[in-house]
Amino acid sequence: MINGVAITQLAQRVGQTPFYAYDRSVIRQNIEQLRQHFGDLAHLHYAIKANPMPALVDFIAPLVDGLDVASGRELTVALNSGAPTHQISFAGPGKNETELLMALASGITINIESERELERIIDLSQQQGYLGNVAVRVNPDFELKTSGMKMGGGAQQFGIDADRVPAVVQKILAAGMNFQGFHIFTGSQNLNANAICEAHNNIYQLASELKKQCDVEIARLNIGGGLGIPYFPGETPIELAPIAENLKQLQAQYQYDFENTEIVLELGRYLVGNAGVFISSVLDIKESRGETFVVVDGGLHHHLAASGNFGQVIRKNYPLAVANKVDCKPENTVNIVGPLCTPLDLLGNKVELPQIEVNDLIVVYQSGAYGYTASPRDFLSHPAPVEVLV
Amino acid sequence: MINGVAITQLAQRVGQTPFYAYDRSVIRQNIEQLRQHFGDLAHLHYAIKANPMPALVDFIAPLVDGLDVASGRELTVALNSGAPTHQISFAGPGKNETELLMALASGITINIESERELERIIDLSQQQGYLGNVAVRVNPDFELKTSGMKMGGGAQQFGIDADRVPAVVQKILAAGMNFQGFHIFTGSQNLNANAICEAHNNIYQLASELKKQCDVEIARLNIGGGLGIPYFPGETPIELAPIAENLKQLQAQYQYDFENTEIVLELGRYLVGNAGVFISSVLDIKESRGETFVVVDGGLHHHLAASGNFGQVIRKNYPLAVANKVDCKPENTVNIVGPLCTPLDLLGNKVELPQIEVNDLIVVYQSGAYGYTASPRDFLSHPAPVEVLV
Repeated sequence: MINGVAITQLAQRVGQTPFYAYDRSVIRQNIEQLRQHFGDLAHLHYAIKANPMPALVDFIAPLVDGLDVASGRELTVALNSGAPTHQISFAGPGKNETELLMALASGITINIESERELERIIDLSQQQGYLGNVAVRVNPDFELKTSGMKMGGGAQQFGIDADRVPAVVQKILAAGMNFQGFHIFTGSQNLNANAICEAHNNIYQLASELKKQCDVEIARLNIGGGLGIPYFPGETPIELAPIAENLKQLQAQYQYDFENTEIVLELGRYLVGNAGVFISSVLDIKESRGETFVVVDGGLHHHLAASGNFGQVIRKNYPLAVANKVDCKPENTVNIVGPLCTPLDLLGNKVELPQIEVNDLIVVYQSGAYGYTASPRDFLSHPAPVEVLV
Repeated sequence: MINGVAITQLAQRVGQTPFYAYDRSVIRQNIEQLRQHFGDLAHLHYAIKANPMPALVDFIAPLVDGLDVASGRELTVALNSGAPTHQISFAGPGKNETELLMALASGITINIESERELERIIDLSQQQGYLGNVAVRVNPDFELKTSGMKMGGGAQQFGIDADRVPAVVQKILAAGMNFQGFHIFTGSQNLNANAICEAHNNIYQLASELKKQCDVEIARLNIGGGLGIPYFPGETPIELAPIAENLKQLQAQYQYDFENTEIVLELGRYLVGNAGVFISSVLDIKESRGETFVVVDGGLHHHLAASGNFGQVIRKNYPLAVANKVDCKPENTVNIVGPLCTPLDLLGNKVELPQIEVNDLIVVYQSGAYGYTASPRDFLSHPAPVEVLV
């Protein structure tokens, strides 16, 4: 069931497979759960990159406190959602001239990623007569431990090294721009609450030091997100309570530094990842030398991460089921493969599933983030999936 | 230079970066070189999946003896090129009903991948009154050694296990369909001529046995391709002479079996891979903790394979250069990164290049195959690259 609609009925309503379906009720629950834990501790932002489907962004925008974009096209989606411009921020190490001007003209906050970028923004804002709201993305001097993907610490393409930040802030102030604060983000897809707490401790300490060194008020401190979701056997949801408890302590400890500072948790995958499924139909079932191959009309070209080919070192199966046979017991061990002429097109390796027939609907769970847009949809020129918000 | 046009001039002619450029003269040379070696030994087919850009397919179609497609949309491109329908074949383990009917209605050859698929084709051809040209894709009982990607041998989603082939051929003949022969393909991206020769030996032997078991004439024997191109340091081009020599011996050895058989070499990457470059512009250059990061406007969303995230186990750099400084000596060790907010967006890790400035053009070589269409172009909603044939 996707928000009360059976997947079999939904497939008819969509009119084709493969498709992605995103469940409004699950997204709402995710946000409510976060509000319960972080309601008076932090603002919640949605990082559009996780899933930029316009209808989904329009749905989420009024439920959160802001949107974060990573490109000009994402900015357009964010503005179309009606989110107030002062609640939109733009990060990314390679913003081009057009994108910088889009950001200035719309009045959103630009997270500066390099000193040269700041110079370009100062030039553009002076040429065009825009004030310019800027925050500084800081490349911290610590790492997020046990993270799926590290994005801070050491040499990085992201942000400005912590020791260069005071000079950059002085340049912002000297140019008369509206300094908004810091963005300190260290990594993503983390399931370990202790690692997140430690990162938050380090972020607060660094932000406090930078505040003293820069001698400015910090209107907003974006502490990133990094909350992961479980994909594979043995993974469990991250515990929010200890993270919230730790954040509360940090706010008490640093109350004089950040009394008037808006703390922002920026989450992408965590808001939408478990709200999405990817559905494909069985085209063929074949035996080859003792193994069963179930060929479906969806594959790596639609859902690259589920095929295990997007940056993963060891391929693991995403959770899978037969939508029209969820009450049936597993009977067979099968391989679920896509329609492409490549052995990389594998959605399930030796999965236990009920007896499968042609036209059965195969569900890939945990597909709400980094699915549709993160896949090479023209690879072998097969039909693209449809996306629906239910 | 791309077919006589300097890349700097080409960038102006294209009007944007990033872009892919494919060089007609290199494609023509590749084909001429193959003709020199295999001219009277085998027909040459182009596997469109490597690069389905319509202008490129239109250019290649008259230079080769046939086209191989992997989807309905590729079939449309092939038909649009004007290639004769009897020289087009369609392989793929997950052909849907629409695609099978497209294939029957256009009169091309369908490579059957399963017994169930054959039943569907027989039903459809009888319902619609089409004769149906079919060949059998055989999953052989041997593997291609030292191959980048194995696609035959063992349990596979591709083709019909060799021991089931005689029964399948009988079914084809009994249904009154036009049996075209066999397609035996074992793997791709192989740089070892001996491995290809051994595969060819095995293919001829298996085809000969199957011919005897089935007691039919083989109009066409597609022996696949598998010829790799060098991407990384230490890799060298595959030697064609020993492969041609071996093929000549095989044709003598099996002359009674395949006297009237058209032997087909099906090549994708080998025809176009070295003919393409991917060009992006430098947006920013930044130092972080002792390393230099060159941020360009092209990245993994445009060229997933070059970022090392498409099925590669160990990331290696594709060959890189600064287009407007090809005559300058390497001076610095830099990282070339794309504009995305992910550390996966890396085109060059610690590359020695001349002094780089903003707006310099970075070239990724060996980008003519599995680039544009094999990349998640909507990932983070950045502008798509343009493709040009020069």
